[in-house]
Amino acid sequence: MSRPLSASAAWPIALSMGDPAGIGPEIVVKALRERPALQRHVVVAGDIQTLHRALRLTGPREGSAEDALVLAEIDDVSAMARLPPGCMAVVQACAPLQPPVFGRIDAQAGRAAADCIRWAAQAALSGRARAVVTAPIQKEALAAAGIDHPGHTEFLQSLAAAHAGAPVQALPVRMMLSCPGLSAVLVSIHVSLRQALQAVTLERVLQTIRITDAHFRRAGLAAPRIAVAGLNPHAGEGGLFGREEIDVIAPAIAQARSEGVEASGPYAPDTVFMRARQGAFDVVVAMYHDQGLIPVKLLGLEHGVNTTLGLPFVRTSPDHGTAFDIAGTGRASAASLLAAIDAAFEAQSTS
Amino acid sequence: MSRPLSASAAWPIALSMGDPAGIGPEIVVKALRERPALQRHVVVAGDIQTLHRALRLTGPREGSAEDALVLAEIDDVSAMARLPPGCMAVVQACAPLQPPVFGRIDAQAGRAAADCIRWAAQAALSGRARAVVTAPIQKEALAAAGIDHPGHTEFLQSLAAAHAGAPVQALPVRMMLSCPGLSAVLVSIHVSLRQALQAVTLERVLQTIRITDAHFRRAGLAAPRIAVAGLNPHAGEGGLFGREEIDVIAPAIAQARSEGVEASGPYAPDTVFMRARQGAFDVVVAMYHDQGLIPVKLLGLEHGVNTTLGLPFVRTSPDHGTAFDIAGTGRASAASLLAAIDAAFEAQSTS
Repeated sequence: MSRPLSASAAWPIALSMGDPAGIGPEIVVKALRERPALQRHVVVAGDIQTLHRALRLTGPREGSAEDALVLAEIDDVSAMARLPPGCMAVVQACAPLQPPVFGRIDAQAGRAAADCIRWAAQAALSGRARAVVTAPIQKEALAAAGIDHPGHTEFLQSLAAAHAGAPVQALPVRMMLSCPGLSAVLVSIHVSLRQALQAVTLERVLQTIRITDAHFRRAGLAAPRIAVAGLNPHAGEGGLFGREEIDVIAPAIAQARSEGVEASGPYAPDTVFMRARQGAFDVVVAMYHDQGLIPVKLLGLEHGVNTTLGLPFVRTSPDHGTAFDIAGTGRASAASLLAAIDAAFEAQSTS
Repeated sequence: MSRPLSASAAWPIALSMGDPAGIGPEIVVKALRERPALQRHVVVAGDIQTLHRALRLTGPREGSAEDALVLAEIDDVSAMARLPPGCMAVVQACAPLQPPVFGRIDAQAGRAAADCIRWAAQAALSGRARAVVTAPIQKEALAAAGIDHPGHTEFLQSLAAAHAGAPVQALPVRMMLSCPGLSAVLVSIHVSLRQALQAVTLERVLQTIRITDAHFRRAGLAAPRIAVAGLNPHAGEGGLFGREEIDVIAPAIAQARSEGVEASGPYAPDTVFMRARQGAFDVVVAMYHDQGLIPVKLLGLEHGVNTTLGLPFVRTSPDHGTAFDIAGTGRASAASLLAAIDAAFEAQSTS
């Protein structure tokens, strides 16, 4: 079920605009303005009026040499080929909005954001988009709209499972955070550290290694070098500071290796990321949220990319939120979104 | 009890040579050769024959313009003032050794290393050294010599407590790891992550904040800006991913603030180190070993410094081990040891 779809590289990336009260629409417009070469390869799932507002907010200053960007509404991705240069292809993926006030939790905005995600996912699941990139959403707005998923990952997982007619548990996914030179895949994400310890089971660690391996093979690596971090200081120091490395992590690595996966470890958590960054590994499997996110965020700054592994399509997003405090000012940077789009292209380079 | 001693800046730093089978003696000699200005301010607690060997191993190549370094044995630090330039002042701080084979666990080497640490600590405790810097030791060699402490920190803590006639518990210490631009103080160190969770108590977190504050005030900061990290992802996200932030960490911060300490938080662990590095804080209090060590080691590379806070004297060390694999080759870098010596000078700049 987690095999890549055979979406042709001719299909665009589906880009959901995110929460219309946040910086999502602005950075979508900025990204396509800053990198005109992307215009032919990205379809925006959004709201026309909201994106028009973003266009005005971020437009080239009077007298600027920057080219104008035209918003071209299309009904289907097949129409993209007929668009002239300078167009941003947009599908009205939600009920038309009165663009909401910036920086406020809004149920209507949450519903629109969810509809755009759903459209983008369906495009990928039906083979008419080569990947999905999502601009940031607001959890509370989703909740206000009655959407029962805490974030993109769970929502996309549920859509993909429904599409396959399978239960959600049959489609295990993992979060990967990347910055230039370092990627970390997390065994667990949004649970307390206490619960994260419980999630370090042989089955879950092994599953994480397998999902990681499949992702990087799909991206074109013949034998991805996967470093598996330990859980405890010094990876337990031979059992002195915890036994999870001996009882759980090492057996998971051994099993993965017996399946032909180039996994190794468990490594001391406080040096494995440094070694990965120096090129010793392609990716690190981290045992909990902060173990992986502390190093990537520290190095990533403006260029962090979040990738969901295990879905039947590639999905990436920028590593930041809706930034309600600066939404509408036009100051938000599109750097991380551009990095996410680049990563989406790279992640399915061979599919 | 943790007030700084009034050791005059005229007194030297006491530098213990570390395990004689490791790189310690080499990097001690290299540091004093590379930075001649230090020679007047550092007394080495070591073994004469072992340091002679290190001198030969690392000496200037034939025809090199580098100055020779002379090993000058002294009995007491008061003799330092009479030494001519180009001398490394050495106290024979252990029973004279037949220098041990490099890279091997050796009980005699462990005992010598322990004696050197003891001499350096006594020099600081008796007010005849302004600070202690320790070159790396080998835990197993210490154990083979019957020394009952897993590392420097516990050993120094016990020596300081004995000197004060107090039980060890009366002298709580904390480990700080620093690299240029980032310092982290750890609530707990060499225990499993599971046990580290148990150590996140109001008393321990508060004690860590207080010890951190005292250290940085001693180093000359009027109101050190102490960021306190959360324990859970997103600092618990308002209780959704764990309650330690609400029940333990926030109350500890509030108590510290009521005592006039400039502490704040709890902050999301995955971004607080980035913010500290950007200058928002002087130091981060980390809830467990890897939370603090992952970011510092990632940034620190060759210049990590380990500082023990809470002792009645300043103590620093390089952030690396005995490197048995390259001991005796002369290839070890003195960069981290030099950073540790610099940090020792800075940490008591106002005492």
